Amino acid sequence: MQEVASTVMERCEQLGDVSEEADALTRPYGSQAMREANELVSGWMQGAGMSVSQDGIGNLVGLYRGTSDKTLVLGSHLDTVRDAGKYDGILGVLVALTCVQRLHDRGERLPFSIEVAAFADEEGLRFGTTYLGSSVYAGAFDAEHLNLRDQDGVTLREAVRAFGGDPDALEQEGRGSGNLLGYCEIHIEQGPVLEEHDLPVGIVTAINGQSRVGLVFDGKAGHAGTVPMEGRQDALCAAAEFVLEVERAARAESGSVATVGEVATLPGAANVIPGRTELSMDVRHPDDEVRERLRDHLKTRAQEIASSRGCDCEWRLRQETPAVRTDPDLSAVLARAVEDSGMAVHRLPSGAGHDAAQVAGLTPVAMLFVRCKEGISHNPAESVAQEDVGVALETMGRFLERVKEGLTLP
Amino acid sequence: MQEVASTVMERCEQLGDVSEEADALTRPYGSQAMREANELVSGWMQGAGMSVSQDGIGNLVGLYRGTSDKTLVLGSHLDTVRDAGKYDGILGVLVALTCVQRLHDRGERLPFSIEVAAFADEEGLRFGTTYLGSSVYAGAFDAEHLNLRDQDGVTLREAVRAFGGDPDALEQEGRGSGNLLGYCEIHIEQGPVLEEHDLPVGIVTAINGQSRVGLVFDGKAGHAGTVPMEGRQDALCAAAEFVLEVERAARAESGSVATVGEVATLPGAANVIPGRTELSMDVRHPDDEVRERLRDHLKTRAQEIASSRGCDCEWRLRQETPAVRTDPDLSAVLARAVEDSGMAVHRLPSGAGHDAAQVAGLTPVAMLFVRCKEGISHNPAESVAQEDVGVALETMGRFLERVKEGLTLP
Repeated sequence: MQEVASTVMERCEQLGDVSEEADALTRPYGSQAMREANELVSGWMQGAGMSVSQDGIGNLVGLYRGTSDKTLVLGSHLDTVRDAGKYDGILGVLVALTCVQRLHDRGERLPFSIEVAAFADEEGLRFGTTYLGSSVYAGAFDAEHLNLRDQDGVTLREAVRAFGGDPDALEQEGRGSGNLLGYCEIHIEQGPVLEEHDLPVGIVTAINGQSRVGLVFDGKAGHAGTVPMEGRQDALCAAAEFVLEVERAARAESGSVATVGEVATLPGAANVIPGRTELSMDVRHPDDEVRERLRDHLKTRAQEIASSRGCDCEWRLRQETPAVRTDPDLSAVLARAVEDSGMAVHRLPSGAGHDAAQVAGLTPVAMLFVRCKEGISHNPAESVAQEDVGVALETMGRFLERVKEGLTLP
Repeated sequence: MQEVASTVMERCEQLGDVSEEADALTRPYGSQAMREANELVSGWMQGAGMSVSQDGIGNLVGLYRGTSDKTLVLGSHLDTVRDAGKYDGILGVLVALTCVQRLHDRGERLPFSIEVAAFADEEGLRFGTTYLGSSVYAGAFDAEHLNLRDQDGVTLREAVRAFGGDPDALEQEGRGSGNLLGYCEIHIEQGPVLEEHDLPVGIVTAINGQSRVGLVFDGKAGHAGTVPMEGRQDALCAAAEFVLEVERAARAESGSVATVGEVATLPGAANVIPGRTELSMDVRHPDDEVRERLRDHLKTRAQEIASSRGCDCEWRLRQETPAVRTDPDLSAVLARAVEDSGMAVHRLPSGAGHDAAQVAGLTPVAMLFVRCKEGISHNPAESVAQEDVGVALETMGRFLERVKEGLTLP
């Protein structure tokens, strides 16, 4: 399996050079780099015995025909963030493609077809909205997004047309759920859990729901030397108390994560008491009810902390995304495949979003996480061991076997 | 006294219009606005019977001759910060000048001369170093400052020459302490203490010493969705704990103030755990030993907090200024003058720096604080009541009487 895995690693490297920037991997939707990546992958798909099509937004779909019209979809995305790593998304496409390559090399046809989907935009780097690719595939594209503009003022409508698609047809471009058996996505974990458990792969239980909030604490600015401690309404002290409450509350609620990632004080001078502090909060949990409870608790605490310090607190809900549970049956098949490969099964939620969240509207989904070094992603330091890619390939081969066994043909 | 006070208020307004900017009061060292301010004040000094000179850096000194060569100095500064209020510095010069005006109007000569010093640069707006004016007057000018450049690249050396002085003579321009009785500075409080005590004036006990520190907490950045709470090394959480410790420790140490005014996180994105947080800390106390103890305690706690969270902490001492005690005898005379005016005596330290800190190297100093609205300063909203200016004028008149009484003429 290591020889096959080394081909995957080489292709990750090769795609890692297909970038809009000379010294970094940056491959936004609709770019020349994206065009080249699609051409490369399309060639590999054809080499693996697939017929290849590109849909209206630029998703590449390779079809490996089976002996029935039932179809299993495997895939992930080919676009990247700015200054990206070489595996986020790409690894999932290449593992799927390589599984088909192995069938093709053996001349094996399955009792179902396999579609390998390489989505054109998951990261949302260019237009600031995620899942553009998989939303079209899943028939969930929102035509209002066509008016979004990139930083050069180019609309998504124009970008779609330039990439060869008909923007006004995107809403009707959905693949449709007919004959689908399910979707399985392979993706790097982007977190440290598998590494901590010393496991190469894991089974995703859910893609966490997410609340994003912007908070503003308003106190009273003043001279750092002349305003006594007693009379202060220090907006940063209020914010600091809140930051620690976010940490405490998330620790107390099993499975949740909550993060304050941005903070700014005004006026922001060494000798001035902060009159205003702005911060962002990101709360995630696989269970929406738990997330909403945690979010509401933190809203109450933010107000209480502000009041107790003579400050005001403004709470701006920026974004809410419900959790998407992976399908228990399809995940059970994937778990058996992990066991078949001689590995312990570890189930974990995904804190990051994935195309599977969109495809779940179309067909049951499962996800296989692959360990990545130190949990680092969205960074050139993103790293995956070839051995782990071998395990992922082995597991996905076993998965196809298990799906084949479980399939009741008419 | 209210008529005299109204003249002071009118002159504060008049000087408030002498600015480098059309819509804001900004009067940096060596500017055309500073030149015009010196001309205006020089005219008022002459009108009050003073002979006026300008020293090498541009300090204006009005001399009202007495019947001996002993001399009492009254004064403050005429420069401002950017978008300043109309009273910081200016009020002290005009109250001093008006005291002399009243003597002159009555044709009264005292058994000592009065010098009214209007310093040319206290705020340090243009060259980033405070006390340029009073350091020359006090014979404490540091010639190395001549190489400082403003934001247009002009050196202090060039600015001094353009303002009519000889930069190379500044070190020798000190007034000298011969025959000096002392220095008394009138200044707005820039804090809320007098307002809270419902008092128009107060006696300054010391100009607080100050420690300025830059801190960097280094943790580990990570994906806000995928790194569990347990394994995090969140640099912002460490910083938040420190911010609250700064507040707690300063509250516990009577008379101290400590402030975190600047904070920044890296990478600073809503969905990334802060890997680094930088902040500033400003600690002040009238007693250097107490300030140093508080500073050292906070250094220890910063390291402890960092260690307990798997983070590192870098501690960069940016600035240390020792406290300057006002002279107990001269302050006692000033306190009697406050009582003579029918007011309760309230003693308080100054959290902000003042020219008196420099002049203290030359002669005993005292300071009279005047209440300002809500403690606001360095802001167009800076506000002083005419009634309080009346009390300051009354107090300073009584002060001159008390100095006269206490003077043992040879």
